[in-house]
Amino acid sequence: MRENSQINSAEIIAIGTEMLLGDLVDTNSAWLSQRLAMLGVSLYRHTTVGDNRARVVAAMKEATSRSDLVVTTGGLGPTSDDITNECLGEVAGRKMVEYPEARQHVDEMFRRFGRKPTPSNYKQALFPEGTTLVPNPRGTAMGAMLEVDGTLFVTFPGVPVEMRGMFGDTIEPLVRERSDGSIVSRTLWFSGIGESALAEQVQEFLDASDPTVAPLAGQGKVRLRITARASTPEEAEGKIEPVAGEILSRLGDYFFGEGTETLESAVGRLLREKGVTISLAESCTGGLLAKRLTDAPGSSAYFLEGLVTYSNQAKERLLGVPHETLEEHGAVSEPVAEAMAEGVRKVAGSDYGLSVTGIAGPEGGTEEKPVGLVYVGLADSEGTMAERMDLTAWEKSREAIRERSANRAFDFLRQRLDGKL
Amino acid sequence: MRENSQINSAEIIAIGTEMLLGDLVDTNSAWLSQRLAMLGVSLYRHTTVGDNRARVVAAMKEATSRSDLVVTTGGLGPTSDDITNECLGEVAGRKMVEYPEARQHVDEMFRRFGRKPTPSNYKQALFPEGTTLVPNPRGTAMGAMLEVDGTLFVTFPGVPVEMRGMFGDTIEPLVRERSDGSIVSRTLWFSGIGESALAEQVQEFLDASDPTVAPLAGQGKVRLRITARASTPEEAEGKIEPVAGEILSRLGDYFFGEGTETLESAVGRLLREKGVTISLAESCTGGLLAKRLTDAPGSSAYFLEGLVTYSNQAKERLLGVPHETLEEHGAVSEPVAEAMAEGVRKVAGSDYGLSVTGIAGPEGGTEEKPVGLVYVGLADSEGTMAERMDLTAWEKSREAIRERSANRAFDFLRQRLDGKL
Repeated sequence: MRENSQINSAEIIAIGTEMLLGDLVDTNSAWLSQRLAMLGVSLYRHTTVGDNRARVVAAMKEATSRSDLVVTTGGLGPTSDDITNECLGEVAGRKMVEYPEARQHVDEMFRRFGRKPTPSNYKQALFPEGTTLVPNPRGTAMGAMLEVDGTLFVTFPGVPVEMRGMFGDTIEPLVRERSDGSIVSRTLWFSGIGESALAEQVQEFLDASDPTVAPLAGQGKVRLRITARASTPEEAEGKIEPVAGEILSRLGDYFFGEGTETLESAVGRLLREKGVTISLAESCTGGLLAKRLTDAPGSSAYFLEGLVTYSNQAKERLLGVPHETLEEHGAVSEPVAEAMAEGVRKVAGSDYGLSVTGIAGPEGGTEEKPVGLVYVGLADSEGTMAERMDLTAWEKSREAIRERSANRAFDFLRQRLDGKL
Repeated sequence: MRENSQINSAEIIAIGTEMLLGDLVDTNSAWLSQRLAMLGVSLYRHTTVGDNRARVVAAMKEATSRSDLVVTTGGLGPTSDDITNECLGEVAGRKMVEYPEARQHVDEMFRRFGRKPTPSNYKQALFPEGTTLVPNPRGTAMGAMLEVDGTLFVTFPGVPVEMRGMFGDTIEPLVRERSDGSIVSRTLWFSGIGESALAEQVQEFLDASDPTVAPLAGQGKVRLRITARASTPEEAEGKIEPVAGEILSRLGDYFFGEGTETLESAVGRLLREKGVTISLAESCTGGLLAKRLTDAPGSSAYFLEGLVTYSNQAKERLLGVPHETLEEHGAVSEPVAEAMAEGVRKVAGSDYGLSVTGIAGPEGGTEEKPVGLVYVGLADSEGTMAERMDLTAWEKSREAIRERSANRAFDFLRQRLDGKL
């Protein structure tokens, strides 16, 4: 094994017939790609092959000639279909030997679950001779690390939580040490502005090459990713900082968070910081706002209640929307959105009330009120406001209309909490 | 082009740097795999490469030597990064020529959206000489169909809705005609029974090879897929029928649907068939039940309202849960689950009331009431019942606990509607 050889390029081989049958979508490759890209490693290829020895070996051999690092996922279980480490042994020309440490690990994990291993479970203790084991504190399958013709192979189980843990614990530090410099990325999230309007305001950064700034838009949100390469992470961060600062000074009103922030987590953070509470009144989103707001652990600190009022009767009885307002304007209207927000704020005794009413389709649209017409409402101690959203221009799915309506509602509240409305 | 050459093996090449950066999870390959498998085509490999000419060409050339059919997705847009058809031209040794039909299609699509094409948009009219065009009624990018050394290449755009439509309209009938026999699958869904208990009851079918029966379990549901190969679809269906019949006669109590059925769609179907209504009272699931039940179009026919009552006060005020019940048993308890279901049924005036209360974590657990303890409640005109769920044995995420609780609640209602409880 060449010590300390550089790792600048990588590819991923996902192993499992279930993916070739379309029974399982491979999310591991995207996750690994993102993490490797952040370490400055260029990804050349993802390959998926089935549990077939000849095809796994062929994929591994091809990858050896192309990349410094080959990461495999899947095929480390105890059944006869699980052949990844044997294939690695064949590619490396090493025989399979039992590793006592891995055998102990199998015993230990079974003990923890109060069960007894069968002889087949000890298959997970067999690795190509010369392998460095990758610890797996979350499952029975340890991984293998083995260099073949200057290419480092690492085998991971396919279970995402195990694979992610092993990557973070063992491979990430190793790759960081051996990659040629660092790539650092910072992701800024914006909402309440379209992609082209946003791009116009920061065009010179989008055209620049160091750092690069790449936009990605969807569902009413726009993401800018700023990426810099340098010999140290600090140096890369030093390149990003002034660009991020300038972008935020121009677009700060639309900025809602960094990295993995979502609109609902940004709203949750603001509610918590201000020590205020929220309640929700939903019609067409049918519980989606409540579900997303309570995805966050600890959301009970600021979320009081959510009322999903599909029927007009429920809007009247639970939220106190006046019968005549519903009669006069219809359930999908600005006055009803306002009355829903006011109503839920009042009955829940919360600081803020947020509402959505609209037509998510595919049925139920009319000429006057087509599928994609949505109103969001917001009430607080100073008053009530509502906004009309028009999602009718493109052919949108029910799911897309609901997601986008929820995003707009959260952004409405975010801007208010941020003092921008 | 060899006419009518057989298509028995295929692979998929997904093209796009965003996938290698982990910005996009490739779901197209799984979808295509499933559809091709149903046509009796064996999938050998998925490959993902970036928008890089040398790497796309290399991936295409490798695939030519292995498979009868190569389907590519992505890289058909109008920008300089979109190189799929040019790469196909290079692999085929054909020059790029403009297809008037494709140019007209670009004009027509732009007209429909009320916009004008720029010169770069006409790049989408260039294809390798000798290409058969694949119509795309949903977008500007037509696909290419071209045979290279006995391998049929088909290029699709990466936008799922466009790709799926083009596959169904054009490629599926062609492959069906040229594949060696038919594979037919039927998927049966079960809940309320564990995978191993279910497997025990149908073990001889799981061990058989024609048809094959494969189980897949997750989140409290188990799926059995029955697959048969024959020279005609009818013959394959004839093999499946008696096996499905026997399985259902043994496991019918746990069966909730076929194909793409979900627990919430099964429940929605039953509610609609019986002409009855439901309302929901949720604590730890925070709106997830309401969201899932209203994912289905037309759910307003049976769904009246959903109350997300996080706080004890909301449980008392909105649902009429007695203060002393909350005091004595705590919010996560069988009596409170029952009172929530009864309460929401009463206030909403619905035929059924369904409730969930539990501890989804990661915080908020105690020795007595740990994270993963959940109660579901169900009330109807004949009375009220509740069930304790223990999801504490494994380390589960908040998301998994919430999903699984929702599944259990829907299954509770399904069994009741089916007359099995």
